[in-house]
Amino acid sequence: MKDTTSTKREDDRFELYLKEHPFRGEPANLYEAMNYIMQLGGKRMRPKLLLMAYECCAGRTDDEALKLSFTIETFHNFSLVHDDILDNAPIRRGKKTVHEKWGQSTAILAGDNMLAMCYKLILDAKIANKETVLKIFSDVATRICEGQQMDMNLPGQKEVTEAQYLQMIQLKTAVLPATALQMGAMAAGAEEHISNEFYTFGLNLGMAFQLQDDYLDAFGSAEETGKQEGGDILENKRTIIYLHAMQHLDKASKELLGAWYSEKVHDPAMKVKQVRELFRKSKSDAYLLELKNAYEQIALEHLKLACKDDAYRQAFINLFEQLKNRKN
Amino acid sequence: MKDTTSTKREDDRFELYLKEHPFRGEPANLYEAMNYIMQLGGKRMRPKLLLMAYECCAGRTDDEALKLSFTIETFHNFSLVHDDILDNAPIRRGKKTVHEKWGQSTAILAGDNMLAMCYKLILDAKIANKETVLKIFSDVATRICEGQQMDMNLPGQKEVTEAQYLQMIQLKTAVLPATALQMGAMAAGAEEHISNEFYTFGLNLGMAFQLQDDYLDAFGSAEETGKQEGGDILENKRTIIYLHAMQHLDKASKELLGAWYSEKVHDPAMKVKQVRELFRKSKSDAYLLELKNAYEQIALEHLKLACKDDAYRQAFINLFEQLKNRKN
Repeated sequence: MKDTTSTKREDDRFELYLKEHPFRGEPANLYEAMNYIMQLGGKRMRPKLLLMAYECCAGRTDDEALKLSFTIETFHNFSLVHDDILDNAPIRRGKKTVHEKWGQSTAILAGDNMLAMCYKLILDAKIANKETVLKIFSDVATRICEGQQMDMNLPGQKEVTEAQYLQMIQLKTAVLPATALQMGAMAAGAEEHISNEFYTFGLNLGMAFQLQDDYLDAFGSAEETGKQEGGDILENKRTIIYLHAMQHLDKASKELLGAWYSEKVHDPAMKVKQVRELFRKSKSDAYLLELKNAYEQIALEHLKLACKDDAYRQAFINLFEQLKNRKN
Repeated sequence: MKDTTSTKREDDRFELYLKEHPFRGEPANLYEAMNYIMQLGGKRMRPKLLLMAYECCAGRTDDEALKLSFTIETFHNFSLVHDDILDNAPIRRGKKTVHEKWGQSTAILAGDNMLAMCYKLILDAKIANKETVLKIFSDVATRICEGQQMDMNLPGQKEVTEAQYLQMIQLKTAVLPATALQMGAMAAGAEEHISNEFYTFGLNLGMAFQLQDDYLDAFGSAEETGKQEGGDILENKRTIIYLHAMQHLDKASKELLGAWYSEKVHDPAMKVKQVRELFRKSKSDAYLLELKNAYEQIALEHLKLACKDDAYRQAFINLFEQLKNRKN
């Protein structure tokens, strides 16, 4: 039954479920747009986490858990469709974004409809603690809107603190894997303290992943990340590395970093190189890795409290390693 | 207790509830945008209908019904915020639209958050049939997205039939008052056949209102409507009047109408005058009024089946008359 390869099994089961359950309705273009984003692929991290938490708590899996994992992926994709409009992004996973392909209006409506569909899916699922699951799902929707808005507000803020940055990434990215785990545990009928441990595990895991992304964005090669090298640096994004550097550099270096972040760039490669040197000078690279490791450690501590079974716990750790080594 | 002035009481209670229950949260601009649209005013038709159906079925009203009526108004305003982006509308009720005031991204997020908030409000309400109420609420959200998309698709369609137009306005505008009434009845613990009668009453009422709007848009004076005279005509909108006229005009007049709808307008007043004459020639004005009256009659028949109490029924009829005579 349970084994350390369950991650692979969860993968296959989820992709099959997705393929067999396209959204259906009229008008066709609205539903095509919804199915398009769902089929674009991705890590499927959130549905996998939900399924594994369910399986860990119920000792088995079933179609109701799959329905719920499909819900969390639908929600994630709703937020991607709307975020891509916010970011004016033309491409996602190598393909046109929904608003590029169907126009902005259809993208807004497709997202709205996907959010409503999530509730229908939960309401139709035969799960434990349904009303609480609905409540925590609604809460995460609100948190993610707040996180998005905070992220949008940051460039206009004169001063940004590390705490504000961490709060923003927590809301924008970490609460969703946390809630996926919590929903999986709750739907399986787990006790509240167990589902809370799953939540805390997921929250810290999500923070660690986001900080790793920030690190790779700043220091990774294009081959490592599959994205433009130093993208955040070129966008003058005040990520936690930048904020830390500005706190810890001497006056002259701080002014230099400030200048790089305010000037129009004529030589992007030079800018990335110079800024990286400043980041290293302030030991912001080491700081970021330490912070990421701390979140990982806390995550693992809570995983122990959430999941007592060695084999299931190992499956989580395997997923964790697998996700860390994936590039997109 | 109950009397024919209950419409006025419902008005006051609802406005007070709205004032006393602003959305609260961070970041401030997200929540300001949400509260701004809620406070812009309007007929409050949907929450009133919900409250009256609840009162008719429960024999009393309470704070839980108010919470639910606030939900339906929140939902209506979510759809207005997103629709105004779709329509690129700068003004609503004489004030800037949310996307004009806070930017498009905040408007998208404010709408998303309002939709999530609706579910939280229903989940928090102490009402009968909560799970069914949540389901029909999710259904109406989907229907309205579909109706919006259909409306957007119409201009690109070569042929539009009357049936397609009626289906579009049913989804886009009539299902919401219908669902408001149904939710009110269900939340009060009414039997299913009663809440279904309320739904059918509301659906036909909604159709009658929309057709009246179409009529006034085509034939009303600016004083009557508070809007630009012949707005749909100037936008070449193929409303039901146009579709009927194109079916019933002689060849020459049909070509003339087609020409007015394809040409660039140099004299808007002349276009409106000429198109109105063609609409009258095909008796499309009379047809529209007949159709509207038919929906009204069906609505009233179902009202009788939904609400057996003379006084409550009279209150619905009073609201109906009051709404018919309001201009915006």
